[in-house]
Amino acid sequence: MRVKHKPWAKEKLQNHPEVCILEPALHRGSWQKLFGNDHPIHIEIGSGKGRFVSGMAQAHPEINYIGIEVVESVLISALDKVLEQDLSNVLLLSVDGARLEDYFVQGEVARIYLNFSDPWPKKRHTKRRLTNPKFLDIYKNILEEAGDIHFKTDNRGLFEYSLQAFSEYGLRLTYVSLDLHNSDFEGNIQTEYEEKFSQKGFPIYRLEAQFNRESEKL
Amino acid sequence: MRVKHKPWAKEKLQNHPEVCILEPALHRGSWQKLFGNDHPIHIEIGSGKGRFVSGMAQAHPEINYIGIEVVESVLISALDKVLEQDLSNVLLLSVDGARLEDYFVQGEVARIYLNFSDPWPKKRHTKRRLTNPKFLDIYKNILEEAGDIHFKTDNRGLFEYSLQAFSEYGLRLTYVSLDLHNSDFEGNIQTEYEEKFSQKGFPIYRLEAQFNRESEKL
Repeated sequence: MRVKHKPWAKEKLQNHPEVCILEPALHRGSWQKLFGNDHPIHIEIGSGKGRFVSGMAQAHPEINYIGIEVVESVLISALDKVLEQDLSNVLLLSVDGARLEDYFVQGEVARIYLNFSDPWPKKRHTKRRLTNPKFLDIYKNILEEAGDIHFKTDNRGLFEYSLQAFSEYGLRLTYVSLDLHNSDFEGNIQTEYEEKFSQKGFPIYRLEAQFNRESEKL
Repeated sequence: MRVKHKPWAKEKLQNHPEVCILEPALHRGSWQKLFGNDHPIHIEIGSGKGRFVSGMAQAHPEINYIGIEVVESVLISALDKVLEQDLSNVLLLSVDGARLEDYFVQGEVARIYLNFSDPWPKKRHTKRRLTNPKFLDIYKNILEEAGDIHFKTDNRGLFEYSLQAFSEYGLRLTYVSLDLHNSDFEGNIQTEYEEKFSQKGFPIYRLEAQFNRESEKL
């Protein structure tokens, strides 16, 4: 997503410390305390303008959501949605997905959402893909034992790559759709990008996967 | 595939015992001897009219192919192709895929091809799908250690099911394409059905997978 740089974005985020957590490392291991309840924590990596995370938060008040988006000029749109909808179960972080272990302790997260992540199609950029084993290591470390990853994308190359990467890593697929909008999946919250893209008639790919921790127990 | 019953099919197959092996159980464990060489054995389950298996055999003289098709009225078309092309590296069997262990010993097969297998879309028919765990058990038993399964289909539901079933079984995906005819895969031999179907513009899905035998060695 190309975004106009908005120099005032940082200030706007700073003006809403009840939603935008400026020093997330301080809450490592105590996010539920910050939410003021013991609900499971679901995070979205690459929240963009926040339509997904705010829509999910509205539909699932029994879940705590944390939207993560490194680009501040984008995150302010997510902030607007959280404020407009007066959502008490969403927090926003402007941090890098590669540093998640600085912000969450092992097992602190119940679910990770990856929606329309940057496909990084060039081979030399493989390691930047959010479904790369380097990132899977991180997700495994912050997810609880039965935690899972929910991933959707319109990008065929990224989905093919991810299916292989997940398989190679030993993740277990618990759901796969190769055409989400023509499947029987219920409760899909579309991202801004998803709505635009799927109107062109291209399929949306979606999967759910769990780390296989059985073998470690033996 | 709906097929007109041809009562003379059996006789035609019987008239070519050099290609159609009528008592395959007799060759269990000694297929290479029958081929007269030590080339790897690749089998196709559900060969239909045989365009794939004969095309592969022509392209890969260094491989021994066995085409398996339970419907005799269809297998005679495969026989015609083998005879016309004078192929010495193809044998044909009219047997049931569920009984493969009666015809092959453990490790005798290097590769299994599944092409456009019947999708059996109804839930109560799940066990008939050729990528069901019941069949995976059989494939694992007849495949050599580094052997693999190559599977392609136009049926989205069957491919989604298979991705999950393979993952659940612990198979490792070594290749995935969600649009084979628009991928960089080379050497694709189209089946009769594939050519007809893909002309309508629908994608062909394809994967390669290996049994993960690492964990058994520990």
